[in-house]
Amino acid sequence: MDEPLTRDVFLGGRLSIWQPRAGYRAATDPVLLAASVGARPGDSVLELGCGAGVALLALGQRLPGLALSGVERQDDYAQLARRNAQENGLDARIVTADLTDLPADLRVTFDHVMANPPYYRPSSPAARDAGRAAALREETPLADWIGCGLRRLKSGGTLTLIHLAERLPAILAALDGPAGSIAVRPVASRVGRPAGRVIVQARKGARGVFRLLAPLTMHAGAEHLEDRDDASDAARALLRDAQALDWI
Amino acid sequence: MDEPLTRDVFLGGRLSIWQPRAGYRAATDPVLLAASVGARPGDSVLELGCGAGVALLALGQRLPGLALSGVERQDDYAQLARRNAQENGLDARIVTADLTDLPADLRVTFDHVMANPPYYRPSSPAARDAGRAAALREETPLADWIGCGLRRLKSGGTLTLIHLAERLPAILAALDGPAGSIAVRPVASRVGRPAGRVIVQARKGARGVFRLLAPLTMHAGAEHLEDRDDASDAARALLRDAQALDWI
Repeated sequence: MDEPLTRDVFLGGRLSIWQPRAGYRAATDPVLLAASVGARPGDSVLELGCGAGVALLALGQRLPGLALSGVERQDDYAQLARRNAQENGLDARIVTADLTDLPADLRVTFDHVMANPPYYRPSSPAARDAGRAAALREETPLADWIGCGLRRLKSGGTLTLIHLAERLPAILAALDGPAGSIAVRPVASRVGRPAGRVIVQARKGARGVFRLLAPLTMHAGAEHLEDRDDASDAARALLRDAQALDWI
Repeated sequence: MDEPLTRDVFLGGRLSIWQPRAGYRAATDPVLLAASVGARPGDSVLELGCGAGVALLALGQRLPGLALSGVERQDDYAQLARRNAQENGLDARIVTADLTDLPADLRVTFDHVMANPPYYRPSSPAARDAGRAAALREETPLADWIGCGLRRLKSGGTLTLIHLAERLPAILAALDGPAGSIAVRPVASRVGRPAGRVIVQARKGARGVFRLLAPLTMHAGAEHLEDRDDASDAARALLRDAQALDWI
């Protein structure tokens, strides 16, 4: 990677991540994704499209003793993820590969799969930075991400996604049937606002009913007041205090 | 109808409805459904499964000048709906028919279709009262309700449903494609609780993105305190003050 890097802290300083200054830069979504996976020591976790490793390493930071694997198509991001794992003292196997063509050693099954797939359709204007464009644009269809995630799961294992709220129908269409016990946690910027994101969790082969949970509200108050940190208590617990998202 | 009737008031006394004491009794859901339909004077509205007419007549009460039609499979409820329309001074055409076999004069298209389909699967234990059982049990599959509603809509017309939140994946699967600009308003009993119901609105032939709105919260406070009316301001506006649900 030829571009300059920055080193950014996540989880209240528990995690330091090198990422390109001008490329795809992780913000809150990968941290919310990591907060949404409930795993036990010894569980295996695969992240599809792990980028520089924020979600995978945030999960490893919060829950020690997991077997972490990440797959990333862009080799420069995969290299950053390896460096970030090492510098944060976490073990993680990072594989450079396309999720539609996984190498044999990843064609096994995991206890948990998670992903923060690209948010923008191939028809959207491309970002100026090529790496950022590849990370943001949905070149592999969302249904293929979900299909790959389900194939890589053990029966009863969880698939957890964070995506734009507007893609919820497509997510549910791909999950409903092969997975069940689907729960949706809407993520809204403020109380009373539509959801911008959804965090969706489903269990492979399960038959429990669909649940639509109360929104996670990221900011306190009705609008942004300048020069004030207005993170909600719930957001602060997940983003800075490394707590787990509640699925009830 | 051989059973005793009660006469119940809705919309803060603006509407009085005869309904069987022991049969299917309308509560808040049909009133929320009626509050969710935005129509202009002269618009035509069809309700599928109108029962004793609460939703259709609540809509007619809130928005004068609509051409109201309702179809109800159980003739004793259809007769009650006709009586309720007359006694509330509202014009409504109520047809006794099964929505899977509509008579020719209903096989036209409407500006708006709404429905509060039965909530329980055919496998659920039947209610003791036969009319209540027929109103509550999903003998006609939910996808058929939605398919019928879409066929009876003009292009660009709205289909509005209220149903159990757990059926949202099935509702979206049936709508997505033939309809678009889908919006979901979750309905939760209290702040922080999962949605019990969803109100879903879609526009036939539209292509707008899916929106997941902030929940409508029915009760104020974290739990029920006895002997106190704890309706939220938002619920009171819809249920007693006959205001419209906001779709933003």
